[in-house]
Amino acid sequence: MTTSNDQEAVIAANAAFYRAVESLDGDLLDAILAHDEPVRVVHPGWPLVSGRADVKASWERIFDNAGVMQFTIVDPEAYVEGELAWVICTERLTSVQGGRVVEGLVATTNLFRRENGEWRIAHHHGSPVM
Amino acid sequence: MTTSNDQEAVIAANAAFYRAVESLDGDLLDAILAHDEPVRVVHPGWPLVSGRADVKASWERIFDNAGVMQFTIVDPEAYVEGELAWVICTERLTSVQGGRVVEGLVATTNLFRRENGEWRIAHHHGSPVM
Repeated sequence: MTTSNDQEAVIAANAAFYRAVESLDGDLLDAILAHDEPVRVVHPGWPLVSGRADVKASWERIFDNAGVMQFTIVDPEAYVEGELAWVICTERLTSVQGGRVVEGLVATTNLFRRENGEWRIAHHHGSPVM
Repeated sequence: MTTSNDQEAVIAANAAFYRAVESLDGDLLDAILAHDEPVRVVHPGWPLVSGRADVKASWERIFDNAGVMQFTIVDPEAYVEGELAWVICTERLTSVQGGRVVEGLVATTNLFRRENGEWRIAHHHGSPVM
């Protein structure tokens, strides 16, 4: 049964995901990434990355190239079905790329899986809003 | 319980979704779109579209502007959790835009909900692979 508590927990997991990304710290990202496969990611403009190790490495590559990444999450909506949940939201992303501040909108679908009682991110799909 | 039959049914629903889009026929799209909310879509480069009526209208706008849309679906992976399922795949999309044939890759996350025993698409998120 889906309860509002479940939805709140998923929204909290979604917020924790963005804090981990903002930290630019691969270890913090690792701590909230799903353990079990499938683990997937589509970064804005990228092809699909598959498998936990490659997903983690792709984030570390982004962290290494980013001076700053700050997110404001707009209208996150959470849906829970058993041990799976999805959040759809829009990211207002402020980043520093090549010494310049860049602002942009990213439309996002995040999938979470409950592992040992903890909601962990299994799939992140972000796409640039043109 | 997730069975391989469930996964096959979801992969079939995913294929039916692309046939409906290729038809450029709003009625065929309507026939496979989830009835219950939430119904959502992120077209490549677009912001989030929310609600069944607006999602359907967004497809009709795309259909009205497309001469041809042909998809080859690469490596669809299906996961089923209760009445919810997700498919991650890559679309090789050939379309005609402004009288020219355009080829491109789209990274895609599709979410399906089982309504009255039928898998229907509740959310499509496609993003351009640069």
